[in-house]
Amino acid sequence: MNPRVKTVQVMPERSLELLSQQEVDLLRRRGEGGQHEILRRCALAVLNVGSRTDDTRAILEQYADFDVGILQQDRGIKLELTNPPADAFVDGQMIRGIREQLFAVLRDVVYIDSEVTGHFDLDSIDGTTNAVFHVLRNADVLRLQSEPNVAVCWGGHAINRREYEYTKDVGYQLGLRAMDVCTGCGSGAMKGPMKGATIAHAKQRVRDGRYIGISEPGIIAAESPNPIVNELVIMPDMEKRLEAFVRVAHALVIFPGGVGTAEELLFLLGIMMKPENAGMPLPLILTGPESSADYFRSIDRFVTETLGEEARRLYRIELGDPAAVARLVSEAMLEVREFRHSHKDAFYFNWRLQIDRDFQVPFEATHENMSALQLHREQNPHDLAVHLRRAFSGMVAGNVKEDGIRAIENHGPFELQGDRQVVEQLDQLLGGFVAQRRMRLSTETYEPCYRLLR
Amino acid sequence: MNPRVKTVQVMPERSLELLSQQEVDLLRRRGEGGQHEILRRCALAVLNVGSRTDDTRAILEQYADFDVGILQQDRGIKLELTNPPADAFVDGQMIRGIREQLFAVLRDVVYIDSEVTGHFDLDSIDGTTNAVFHVLRNADVLRLQSEPNVAVCWGGHAINRREYEYTKDVGYQLGLRAMDVCTGCGSGAMKGPMKGATIAHAKQRVRDGRYIGISEPGIIAAESPNPIVNELVIMPDMEKRLEAFVRVAHALVIFPGGVGTAEELLFLLGIMMKPENAGMPLPLILTGPESSADYFRSIDRFVTETLGEEARRLYRIELGDPAAVARLVSEAMLEVREFRHSHKDAFYFNWRLQIDRDFQVPFEATHENMSALQLHREQNPHDLAVHLRRAFSGMVAGNVKEDGIRAIENHGPFELQGDRQVVEQLDQLLGGFVAQRRMRLSTETYEPCYRLLR
Amino acid sequence: MNPRVKTVQVMPERSLELLSQQEVDLLRRRGEGGQHEILRRCALAVLNVGSRTDDTRAILEQYADFDVGILQQDRGIKLELTNPPADAFVDGQMIRGIREQLFAVLRDVVYIDSEVTGHFDLDSIDGTTNAVFHVLRNADVLRLQSEPNVAVCWGGHAINRREYEYTKDVGYQLGLRAMDVCTGCGSGAMKGPMKGATIAHAKQRVRDGRYIGISEPGIIAAESPNPIVNELVIMPDMEKRLEAFVRVAHALVIFPGGVGTAEELLFLLGIMMKPENAGMPLPLILTGPESSADYFRSIDRFVTETLGEEARRLYRIELGDPAAVARLVSEAMLEVREFRHSHKDAFYFNWRLQIDRDFQVPFEATHENMSALQLHREQNPHDLAVHLRRAFSGMVAGNVKEDGIRAIENHGPFELQGDRQVVEQLDQLLGGFVAQRRMRLSTETYEPCYRLLR
Amino acid sequence: MNPRVKTVQVMPERSLELLSQQEVDLLRRRGEGGQHEILRRCALAVLNVGSRTDDTRAILEQYADFDVGILQQDRGIKLELTNPPADAFVDGQMIRGIREQLFAVLRDVVYIDSEVTGHFDLDSIDGTTNAVFHVLRNADVLRLQSEPNVAVCWGGHAINRREYEYTKDVGYQLGLRAMDVCTGCGSGAMKGPMKGATIAHAKQRVRDGRYIGISEPGIIAAESPNPIVNELVIMPDMEKRLEAFVRVAHALVIFPGGVGTAEELLFLLGIMMKPENAGMPLPLILTGPESSADYFRSIDRFVTETLGEEARRLYRIELGDPAAVARLVSEAMLEVREFRHSHKDAFYFNWRLQIDRDFQVPFEATHENMSALQLHREQNPHDLAVHLRRAFSGMVAGNVKEDGIRAIENHGPFELQGDRQVVEQLDQLLGGFVAQRRMRLSTETYEPCYRLLR
Repeated sequence: MNPRVKTVQVMPERSLELLSQQEVDLLRRRGEGGQHEILRRCALAVLNVGSRTDDTRAILEQYADFDVGILQQDRGIKLELTNPPADAFVDGQMIRGIREQLFAVLRDVVYIDSEVTGHFDLDSIDGTTNAVFHVLRNADVLRLQSEPNVAVCWGGHAINRREYEYTKDVGYQLGLRAMDVCTGCGSGAMKGPMKGATIAHAKQRVRDGRYIGISEPGIIAAESPNPIVNELVIMPDMEKRLEAFVRVAHALVIFPGGVGTAEELLFLLGIMMKPENAGMPLPLILTGPESSADYFRSIDRFVTETLGEEARRLYRIELGDPAAVARLVSEAMLEVREFRHSHKDAFYFNWRLQIDRDFQVPFEATHENMSALQLHREQNPHDLAVHLRRAFSGMVAGNVKEDGIRAIENHGPFELQGDRQVVEQLDQLLGGFVAQRRMRLSTETYEPCYRLLR
Repeated sequence: MNPRVKTVQVMPERSLELLSQQEVDLLRRRGEGGQHEILRRCALAVLNVGSRTDDTRAILEQYADFDVGILQQDRGIKLELTNPPADAFVDGQMIRGIREQLFAVLRDVVYIDSEVTGHFDLDSIDGTTNAVFHVLRNADVLRLQSEPNVAVCWGGHAINRREYEYTKDVGYQLGLRAMDVCTGCGSGAMKGPMKGATIAHAKQRVRDGRYIGISEPGIIAAESPNPIVNELVIMPDMEKRLEAFVRVAHALVIFPGGVGTAEELLFLLGIMMKPENAGMPLPLILTGPESSADYFRSIDRFVTETLGEEARRLYRIELGDPAAVARLVSEAMLEVREFRHSHKDAFYFNWRLQIDRDFQVPFEATHENMSALQLHREQNPHDLAVHLRRAFSGMVAGNVKEDGIRAIENHGPFELQGDRQVVEQLDQLLGGFVAQRRMRLSTETYEPCYRLLR
Repeated sequence: MNPRVKTVQVMPERSLELLSQQEVDLLRRRGEGGQHEILRRCALAVLNVGSRTDDTRAILEQYADFDVGILQQDRGIKLELTNPPADAFVDGQMIRGIREQLFAVLRDVVYIDSEVTGHFDLDSIDGTTNAVFHVLRNADVLRLQSEPNVAVCWGGHAINRREYEYTKDVGYQLGLRAMDVCTGCGSGAMKGPMKGATIAHAKQRVRDGRYIGISEPGIIAAESPNPIVNELVIMPDMEKRLEAFVRVAHALVIFPGGVGTAEELLFLLGIMMKPENAGMPLPLILTGPESSADYFRSIDRFVTETLGEEARRLYRIELGDPAAVARLVSEAMLEVREFRHSHKDAFYFNWRLQIDRDFQVPFEATHENMSALQLHREQNPHDLAVHLRRAFSGMVAGNVKEDGIRAIENHGPFELQGDRQVVEQLDQLLGGFVAQRRMRLSTETYEPCYRLLR
Repeated sequence: MNPRVKTVQVMPERSLELLSQQEVDLLRRRGEGGQHEILRRCALAVLNVGSRTDDTRAILEQYADFDVGILQQDRGIKLELTNPPADAFVDGQMIRGIREQLFAVLRDVVYIDSEVTGHFDLDSIDGTTNAVFHVLRNADVLRLQSEPNVAVCWGGHAINRREYEYTKDVGYQLGLRAMDVCTGCGSGAMKGPMKGATIAHAKQRVRDGRYIGISEPGIIAAESPNPIVNELVIMPDMEKRLEAFVRVAHALVIFPGGVGTAEELLFLLGIMMKPENAGMPLPLILTGPESSADYFRSIDRFVTETLGEEARRLYRIELGDPAAVARLVSEAMLEVREFRHSHKDAFYFNWRLQIDRDFQVPFEATHENMSALQLHREQNPHDLAVHLRRAFSGMVAGNVKEDGIRAIENHGPFELQGDRQVVEQLDQLLGGFVAQRRMRLSTETYEPCYRLLR
């Protein structure tokens, strides 16, 4: 069993320092009621920094005796942690970055429950976008800034050593150019760019570098935030998380990854292919070490064969040259700046980007929903992107999310059907992911959570 | 006619810089709808810094062509001011402190309308106190602080030169002792202490001195905030304003004043006489120059004759010695510190103080309500304090508030009745206020807004 | 006798916090040796904030028992004050601004003694100017700044109430326009602008307003610095003080004053009349309330009759309109900015200004030197300005400096001779100063320290 | 040939921004005169961040066409670099940390030449120590701090991968405990701890982490500073560099290294063995990965066999446990704090430490001096430490310093003689260094620069 600290009480940071008595009541009630389990999981994810697994269910079992309680005090609240992982502490003191993240989790879980659900029309596009904005602003992620400089980095948590070092190099080169980094805040390609940027920011004397991590309750346990993340925000679900990414991004970099990364790519391509978004600069660079060339070739082929040549024009593949990638990002920022400026758009949130309702509706990874996906080319590419995105999203759930793992255990792999061309492409792509061990962190043989029917 | 600037657009400051599209819509709608007139008046009060009158109706007539509009922009909002007073500008640029106050007004008016009304149970003591807390926190007035140091200064806007200089001297001595100053943010005794403290803070190199002004829509036009006020908050009504004062105060100083000051004194004494508050240190010092000795003698007598000797023990009168006053405040802070510390109470908000519902219920100054006041000693002193507070509150309205002035014009002076002793005391006290020109700023003969019946 | 505090030890601030053992030795030795008396006087001046006299000798006699010692500690030094004036303390604590000034005095006295004397060629123009630069930089008065905004304000310490209020109003208007204020740091016209600017800076939220005071050991006791002064620097002598003023100034404002102010005006006019300085913008505005119109008429006439019409073009007289004065200064800053920018000159020190050696050589106010002055028009105006400046300088000494007062006592008034026109002009000007009580603060009849011979 | 940028002009940072005309002259003259070559070498070292060699002569040959010039400007100076290494630039912009270091070099080279040489009695112990203090203070390395937290890390530049990773881990653990890191600012064990601390400081939200690098002109080219170093100081020579280390250190950590590290260890042991320093806490921990156990055994044996058992008590060897090392350092800080506090010693400079003149006198590595060293046990251990330190110092020169390399080329290896026991110990130790490739970075066979005679 992992080492644990028995019980510890933690004082809040920042926005939770000044609470009214009503808020203290509310927090305590929520923390004990329906939100308690979500809070417990997210808190565990944040504390579980030494984790080397991505199996949410295993983690929850391992830390079954972990709990988090909210203590009411005259002047506010404290968190009481029972059996927290020892790695979150240094000589008995919680690492400050982790303490901040812990209260970021509490802040967001309660905010979503009390100020988002029921307060925004989440069945409408605008209501959803406004909700995304409010969660981000409440987390203090939206900042008036003089220059666009947020590079969102996507990529897998299960990548090889060479790829990981490469993500550090790209982060380093981005940091040398004063870029801030935003990722999904887990390990692998989500952590490497932040480490690299931290070192580069130190060399460039950038003292207020931002390392933004955007997560959601279902995935956070599998993608435990690195304590470098100094702006953590928990979105209500995967779709709002993805919307948050694309609305705060000034440029995007995609590293090698598995089904999660494929989901992200499809989400973005689907949106950018929408005619209303044509002409809006949103640079997208796919990159990895030279040794990952095959991987990108297969991604590129998959996109072309399913969404068409047009989709291919929305990104650029650049291999083995971190400085070149950073230069591309840096140059693209000038375009973004010019575009936003001329349209009087804010730098901190891309209101202008049109996102279809199909990409906002939360997709539940059930066997029924998965087998109902329309994976054929007899529809326009944008709609195919919608369904492919959902297919990958379901596979993420089947691989690492608690509900998904249980569904697979009970009912066997998800079944996906479609036309021959699409299914063949999927088969090749997923086969590659399996062969390259991109599906899971574990060293055991990967047991696919899906079955392709033609 | 006073000089005016024709039309000017002003960019927001601070909390209104990052708005969602929903909020922009809301602001615009509120600003055009029911809240527009409140917003217009408060904005005018803030801009009207050169004002030398306290006649709200006259001010509103003089600036009948002033208006404020909310312009929607892609990135947020702007305020558009039509015919604003020229004194708010220096060479065409709005004074920064006034700009901050302008958006403080917008912030509070909208917050009260959208987040307070209907969100708190304003019919309960706790709901009201929580509402007061939330308005203050939203205005960023509540701060974690290592030492209690907020001296609330009350006193009249219509005071003589010697008294005004004395309030500056007290503010100076408080500032030398690193006290922050909180007032009702008008002229006279509300402005003097801030000016004095500003100079003292400069000498003591206190760079983050706080000059807190707490107002409410009905009184603000008559008590136009001084631009030194760097934390302005608009409470929903007079009673919540008074509650805000006593909950943020660590000590209180009362200078000479008229009926408004008497209202404040009665409010505080009524609360402090409540047995539940016994033993809680909340220092109260009545002070003025030696030349105002008569004034304080009459106040002292009035309190003793109406509320009894017990009430007298709750304050201390100190004349002609600003340094001694500041020393008393400074020493009292140690007690406050000790008390709050030992009870684990916050420094920034006095949750522990018990306030009766009677002091929270807004009092509307109608002829009916005024004549129904129970001004007799056949009740316990606490209840008499409640009624006397309301009597003075009504006279404030009759003197300077728009509705009150109109009511008097239409129906003649308010009639107050009570037992002989109380009415006689009132007569003497008010007669003194009139004779000493404490009722109004105007130089014309004061026409009483009240009539005492025995 | 004035109230005193017995003995107090004070810890250093800022640059004297980190000393080597050699420096501690040196400081102690200097502080006990030849520099001790200078240090004692300057320290007394700084502490003597409540002073109402300008008679250096009287002050020194009154505080004959005051002393300052330097205590050596393992980690640095402390100052030990014996019998310091009580006004420097609040409840036993020295006012922070005064503490800073106290160590500014120590810093400068020692720096001049150990790093200036003998290290710069003070017999050359360049050596002297470099010395002035080094003393200012060591005092941290030279700052890289994005905009020129230092308004040097000159004027008398003995001015009437109306004039004093006017200097506050001008300071207020300057402060509203984000100007910083630099004066000789005494009372009257040296203090008023700083008080006004402090209030205006508070309203404009200028949190780092600069109140620069430039003094020298001979004058400081008579012109005790106000604690608002947050950058105090002690120059070696009057001439270097004057050079410091004109090299840090971006604009100059002259209020009513006596012989000291006349000395300053002559110094500046003499320099600006030098052909090499033609075309360099250095705005000079003479101003006071309408009631001081006669005073300025006499100054204007004196300048015209002695230095000629040309000198008149170097300044502008503006009466009774503080906002207009501030606007002139503010507009002139744009010219200064443009000029310095186009010549790649620094904003923080006007290296380009040519100052003749005649204006740099310290003038000793002896009877011999005074009677040797060439006060006639048979020389070019620039040379006449040199001699007139010295004449006024001598009268300042005779009025308020210790040596000067003693010389007059021993040998009677200084005798000045010259041609009829110049002497007549002098007579009229000085007669006016006497009649308007601009010579001394004392209320007794002024006994002239000079005699004019024709 | 390495890539170069042709010519570039660089604006100064910090202390060199405000210069007098005399200083500009001086800088230009020194920069062109005798100090030019020193300046050129140090500047090259700072810019040469991509360097993979430690052969000073080779570096200088490779960059023979590099030059640095000082351009005089009206407002100050600029540096003009000819053919600087391209690695110092990102997209044509010099990395900010390197720019700061470049001007740190200029600052120190000129300060030493103009303010140290001839101004301090460098032939006396006190004069030397004061000079060390002044160079450090001028570089802004001495700071008033509330807690001792400077961990000086020594170790080799030529260490293996496992050792390098270990130094990063120790730095990381130190950083988690809010320690600042000070090293010799080259690669290997001088760089690893800083990288680790940077990541840990990010996690602990330590935003003002200090990474102090202390170098000297002779060694800097071989130990090119990492741009993470945010406080670089160039001491006049190796002995003052060593004194600077021990006087700013609150604790010392020694990683594996070669002759340079041995020199440092002997220097410290020699000082700590002095009876006057007994009882002063100055924790010293020797550490490395488990795989380096042999190395430390040989060091330990060498110390015991030459200086005796007593010396052994001055350090502790801790293997393979970075967290344990950091905990030891962290706990020792409390002792240091207590000791300094009780003795009223400064935290920022250890004045109390007694250093013998023998350790201050610069040792010139000539054949004559080397062969005259007294390497025998017929003296007290302290004196033997003096000679051994010099022996290692000479070998450093012979390995990587320009003069040393040339001397060896011309005259063959240095000859060292002593008694059998000492020479045998030396032989074993140095043999180990050679076998473990700790002598040089180059991959070629190491040609010893010394010969041991028995």
